[in-house]
Amino acid sequence: MDTPISSTDAQVGSLPQPYLLFLGDTSEPAFAKTAFGLSDWAGDRCVGEWSCGATVSTGLPLLTPGEAVARGARGLVIGVANAGGFIPERWIAALIEALEAGLDLVSGMHMRLADIPQLAATATRLGRRLIDIRTPPHGIPVASGRQRSGKRLLTVGTDCALGKKYTALALARAFVARGVAADFRASGQTGILIAGGGIPMDAVVADFEAGAAELLSPAASPQHWDVIEGQGSLFHPAYAGVSLGLLHGSQPDVFVVCHEPGRRHMLGYPDFPMPSIEEVIDLTIRLGRRTNPLIRCAGVSLNTGKLEADAAQALLQAESRRLGLPVADPMRGGAAFKQLVDAALQLSSDT
Amino acid sequence: MDTPISSTDAQVGSLPQPYLLFLGDTSEPAFAKTAFGLSDWAGDRCVGEWSCGATVSTGLPLLTPGEAVARGARGLVIGVANAGGFIPERWIAALIEALEAGLDLVSGMHMRLADIPQLAATATRLGRRLIDIRTPPHGIPVASGRQRSGKRLLTVGTDCALGKKYTALALARAFVARGVAADFRASGQTGILIAGGGIPMDAVVADFEAGAAELLSPAASPQHWDVIEGQGSLFHPAYAGVSLGLLHGSQPDVFVVCHEPGRRHMLGYPDFPMPSIEEVIDLTIRLGRRTNPLIRCAGVSLNTGKLEADAAQALLQAESRRLGLPVADPMRGGAAFKQLVDAALQLSSDT
Repeated sequence: MDTPISSTDAQVGSLPQPYLLFLGDTSEPAFAKTAFGLSDWAGDRCVGEWSCGATVSTGLPLLTPGEAVARGARGLVIGVANAGGFIPERWIAALIEALEAGLDLVSGMHMRLADIPQLAATATRLGRRLIDIRTPPHGIPVASGRQRSGKRLLTVGTDCALGKKYTALALARAFVARGVAADFRASGQTGILIAGGGIPMDAVVADFEAGAAELLSPAASPQHWDVIEGQGSLFHPAYAGVSLGLLHGSQPDVFVVCHEPGRRHMLGYPDFPMPSIEEVIDLTIRLGRRTNPLIRCAGVSLNTGKLEADAAQALLQAESRRLGLPVADPMRGGAAFKQLVDAALQLSSDT
Repeated sequence: MDTPISSTDAQVGSLPQPYLLFLGDTSEPAFAKTAFGLSDWAGDRCVGEWSCGATVSTGLPLLTPGEAVARGARGLVIGVANAGGFIPERWIAALIEALEAGLDLVSGMHMRLADIPQLAATATRLGRRLIDIRTPPHGIPVASGRQRSGKRLLTVGTDCALGKKYTALALARAFVARGVAADFRASGQTGILIAGGGIPMDAVVADFEAGAAELLSPAASPQHWDVIEGQGSLFHPAYAGVSLGLLHGSQPDVFVVCHEPGRRHMLGYPDFPMPSIEEVIDLTIRLGRRTNPLIRCAGVSLNTGKLEADAAQALLQAESRRLGLPVADPMRGGAAFKQLVDAALQLSSDT
């Protein structure tokens, strides 16, 4: 059995692709975001999906591990990101079935595959790999706070699981399409699987959180953009510290606030109301200017996936008028998204 | 060689006391805060100090490891808390000398004693213990954000290493002296060595930071106080995420701002000016009310150790008038400190 690779080693070429996406027994789409992220942004590297009782679906063909292997799959990716990042006992039989069918296992959970004795024994017996991508690199330094060259955009959120990664991916793609040198910087397990590298910011020891963010977007040429995937929310009762360390270490010139209209409380925290977009803008500027005094908000990304096209367009326009900022759904593109991209690139050239 | 114990197991009785305090080659007193903390708050458990070229001193007798063993010492405590928590190569010979003289080693650094091959080999050969107290407990949950019974006070800071631990220790002692049920809750290595338990908050994986803070001050009887040692500063470019997770998970009813007059910039960060006390009060309330809407500032603790008594008294009074709050140096006690204790206890009974 190979040693599990760290995220910094997780180049796309070394991961066992293509993938079969495992949905566990998930009934909440927000918790299956790893599967959706891979299906949407790396669909050419996914042959299908499988579950042990999930009620959500990526729309990919439902395949058993044996069928997936017959179609060329080499790895089963755990496509679920639950709170706490644990692998429930009730998934183990399915994971063993995947190993026995010939698939390596790839996980972005906090819990390590190799720490589950049945999986470790089966993988060793069959010569399969257990790959934990939520492993930060060794030797992360304490943040220096020093400014570094290059431009940076960070996506921030009103909550978890509402579009920070998709927004960053779409912005990075749009920047490149305009001939701007840009890299998507993955800060979570799904982004790392899509990009083939990055740092799982929520798995870093707290003292080194901002230092890891400095590593994630290193000094670059002055016109280069790092488009950094945000994590959590400054208003999240459990994860705000992750968000603040990422904000401080990223030193973003520009940020985009991501929100899902209609979400009434923090996901999984019914006693915690959502913050307003204005509150997130205000607090991000207040905290972010500690390491980049020129930080500014370029606009807002709304996840309108639950709305019809007309209703979505009307909402984007109304919110843009209300806030006085570009407001777009990157997955719908169009003029609104073009304005958001314009605003991000223009703001920075002002500074 | 024993397995290194975790902080939750680090009961005073199981640590190799009394201690010889090791100062390394430290020239900055703020980095020797573990040695000073033990000397000041657990002096009856320290026989002396030793170094390999340090220019700071706790005032305890300078003893070689052999002399310390002759006076009953059982453990050498690394009394230094440098940025990054590493053990420099140039200390290794001294640490080996301590092992050979008959002392176990106790460390609160991020770097593990047992990960240094020469120390591991020497300890194994001699049957000595290598005890890393900066090891968080296993199985820390994600924060729930739920309110829990009991009262909580958190010390917060304008920066690191300026009195958050001393203030919490002094307040907890003062509460008990008034017949109030109170526990000091240690969140860092020195506090853990003093208290015999606690959680090293800066060594917790970032996703679980607020959850660890919830564990650190569990539900208690309604009139019981947890007096929680703060960490870092919300304005620190490297450690603000630790401070925010601790604030959110502690859900303090009351906080006390700790500051060192005359400090011009963040320790080790000359490009980062110190925040004002008012800024710290304002930001702590703004962020803290997310998990405890009733959070209030009881007053300010000034570390006036570098001032003469008269100058210190004048400063405490002037700052109290300026801020409209009790301002005391807990190490000087007196009427000002009594007012601070009154304010903490009274504020909470209002709520």
